[in-house]
Amino acid sequence: MDYYQLDTTTAADYIRDLPEMQTLFSGFDDLEIIEVGDGNLNFVFIITNRQNVQETVVLKQAVPFLRVVGESWPLSRERMTHEVMALEFQESICPGLVPKVYHSSDNMSLVIMQNLKDHQILRGEIIKGKIFPHLSEHISTFLAETLFKSSDLALDHDVKKQQVGKTINIELCKITEDFVFTHPFEDNETNEYNEALSQDAIDLIQKDPAVRSAVGEMKYAFMTKAEALLHGDLHIGSIMANEQETFVIDPEFSFYGPMGFDLGAMIGNLFLSYFSHDYRQRQIGKDPSAYRRWLLECAEEIWIGFEKKFLDLWRAHDAKEGGSLFGKDLAGDSADAFRTVFMQRIFSDMIGFAACKMMRRIVGLAKVADIADIEDPQERAKAEENALKMGAEMVVRRSEFKSFSDLVDLATSISPLSGTK
Amino acid sequence: MDYYQLDTTTAADYIRDLPEMQTLFSGFDDLEIIEVGDGNLNFVFIITNRQNVQETVVLKQAVPFLRVVGESWPLSRERMTHEVMALEFQESICPGLVPKVYHSSDNMSLVIMQNLKDHQILRGEIIKGKIFPHLSEHISTFLAETLFKSSDLALDHDVKKQQVGKTINIELCKITEDFVFTHPFEDNETNEYNEALSQDAIDLIQKDPAVRSAVGEMKYAFMTKAEALLHGDLHIGSIMANEQETFVIDPEFSFYGPMGFDLGAMIGNLFLSYFSHDYRQRQIGKDPSAYRRWLLECAEEIWIGFEKKFLDLWRAHDAKEGGSLFGKDLAGDSADAFRTVFMQRIFSDMIGFAACKMMRRIVGLAKVADIADIEDPQERAKAEENALKMGAEMVVRRSEFKSFSDLVDLATSISPLSGTK
Repeated sequence: MDYYQLDTTTAADYIRDLPEMQTLFSGFDDLEIIEVGDGNLNFVFIITNRQNVQETVVLKQAVPFLRVVGESWPLSRERMTHEVMALEFQESICPGLVPKVYHSSDNMSLVIMQNLKDHQILRGEIIKGKIFPHLSEHISTFLAETLFKSSDLALDHDVKKQQVGKTINIELCKITEDFVFTHPFEDNETNEYNEALSQDAIDLIQKDPAVRSAVGEMKYAFMTKAEALLHGDLHIGSIMANEQETFVIDPEFSFYGPMGFDLGAMIGNLFLSYFSHDYRQRQIGKDPSAYRRWLLECAEEIWIGFEKKFLDLWRAHDAKEGGSLFGKDLAGDSADAFRTVFMQRIFSDMIGFAACKMMRRIVGLAKVADIADIEDPQERAKAEENALKMGAEMVVRRSEFKSFSDLVDLATSISPLSGTK
Repeated sequence: MDYYQLDTTTAADYIRDLPEMQTLFSGFDDLEIIEVGDGNLNFVFIITNRQNVQETVVLKQAVPFLRVVGESWPLSRERMTHEVMALEFQESICPGLVPKVYHSSDNMSLVIMQNLKDHQILRGEIIKGKIFPHLSEHISTFLAETLFKSSDLALDHDVKKQQVGKTINIELCKITEDFVFTHPFEDNETNEYNEALSQDAIDLIQKDPAVRSAVGEMKYAFMTKAEALLHGDLHIGSIMANEQETFVIDPEFSFYGPMGFDLGAMIGNLFLSYFSHDYRQRQIGKDPSAYRRWLLECAEEIWIGFEKKFLDLWRAHDAKEGGSLFGKDLAGDSADAFRTVFMQRIFSDMIGFAACKMMRRIVGLAKVADIADIEDPQERAKAEENALKMGAEMVVRRSEFKSFSDLVDLATSISPLSGTK
């Protein structure tokens, strides 16, 4: 089938012919098809049988340009191939943490998947100050499972190398290389600055050789370290959740990269929320401590949960396989010594990547609503300066932090739990 | 053309039909074709026109098994594709440092190239104690040019990623993963030990958790860091030289890996020679100091030359391109700060990889003749123990060495220039 761009009319015809949809839908004569306008990259339709609203799917189709900009920004449809590969891998090991895929077509650059109608985008809920009691548990599982099971620690050498080749994602990696690791640190024309943000704060990340060279190292690691099949854009806008369930969505940026990148995206976003909730909680008349403590605990639990689950998977794998990447452990204490230095490296990578992600969200093109939607420029600038200060410190000293509580201490020293300093 | 395995008769027919050979040879009626028996992996023929011995080429053909073992060790012919890709890249930027390629065929898994008839395999010459005054100059150029120009520092992001995909070299990387980074450190059945080698020396590299975990880190880096198109097996048996010229040969192990791996192979081999020449120079009645000093100087000059040339290429590239991986340098001192930490990382990677290569040559399957051909088991064991001691120290402390002279000091503290301690 040749590619064509679906609309609300042709989408109905398209799904009607699919065996997978014939199983799922009892009829196609009374479909509601809504185009959801909030995708940056793609077109998204929610398709529901009005006769039985439980029969509902999401159809996501890539177009050969960046949807949010238009045809002036060409972007190949290949990104959908990457999204589908990642979703299928993630679903195979983390069912229930990613949307179920019902159908995909490479030619049509589309995927039809579970409609998460009882879930909300996490960022919006966190902005509102909502607590998600299972978030750290679910996300640490997602991270441990996907990162371990796509790595050289778990896969046969040949399978892993073939996967690296298949998942090379040139265009979307370039977006990250530019907008996460380069433009924000060079006063690029695509940057956007809050006018209340001090020049000193901007200079801290654009003119300090220690920060710049550390960011350069992180960029280079992003471009060269093919450790695991990443989600590639795991911020809190790529998660849909309710109190019980958590789903990771939108893995079109997926590629083989450094494990710390997904981890860092996640915790960096929680630190940004932390800085935003100094103002946000006060604004709704609350002492900021409680919610901000939850944010920091959530970040810490993600790392600690990840570390434990990753190591459990690793030890179980090695015990079962006999052989392993490490080889035989003649003295009995060497494999664990290796695991210890390995996790330290992942930890410092996570901190470095989190830092880059935090800093770019302040001065780069793509903001986070947690901070960007604070209307008072002075209050916004305070959260921004805190985020930049923490990011700069984290990336430069990324190998010096001994445990996650050191990071928590840094956050609270920059902005105390109860707010403003 | 379907693949068939050439012999001394069919090789004549094969080259006769090639336009490239018709240009090079004035006639094909009086060819001398000798099969050279010294390839581990492939068949190699030297083809010469007896009427004009200047008309001579080398034909190298891969067979679908490991030549040195036989058909019981299958190995796909794809390795020739990797060798040709690497040779063509290297020749394009380092003409005169690799053999000229006249013809290659993917179907036939063969390459026809310059016959280096006035050059010798470097290892044999170094065993004899010969000095090569231009070696460090040539090899540092080869390393700087090939590593820089295949990296993200020089190539466009898309070109580099495509190259990574094309050059994935599953089978030959596996040989390195097993025989360089795993078997020697786990008492594998493929290992071979000099019976005079002390168990303590073996335990040092097989049972010390610090050594084992450091070697694990190097193996993992080898498998995950896609920095540059490596030669992949750059020991002194992969170099042919005379006093004036140096050629790097046999890049079938080529793939995108960590820059430090090629550098480490080179300097590790020179350290092994250093330890062997305690005995070797005494045996021919010489004070070992002079030749051993040259070996250490050569290793040091390779690093220092590489570092300078690599940085020169990098600065020139950035000056010319305007943009660069690093982005704009607003304060003027950040790009150099990045270059400094970058080179420190390459330096410690080099040391770690050199160490692995040194240790594996002592207890692993593949030896270096420099040491393995010392007939007296006690003398051999002394060189072996020195190499293991240095390797263990290097890999564990790889990030602590400040300059190459620290490495030289380590070598001379283990075995003084003038010999035996």
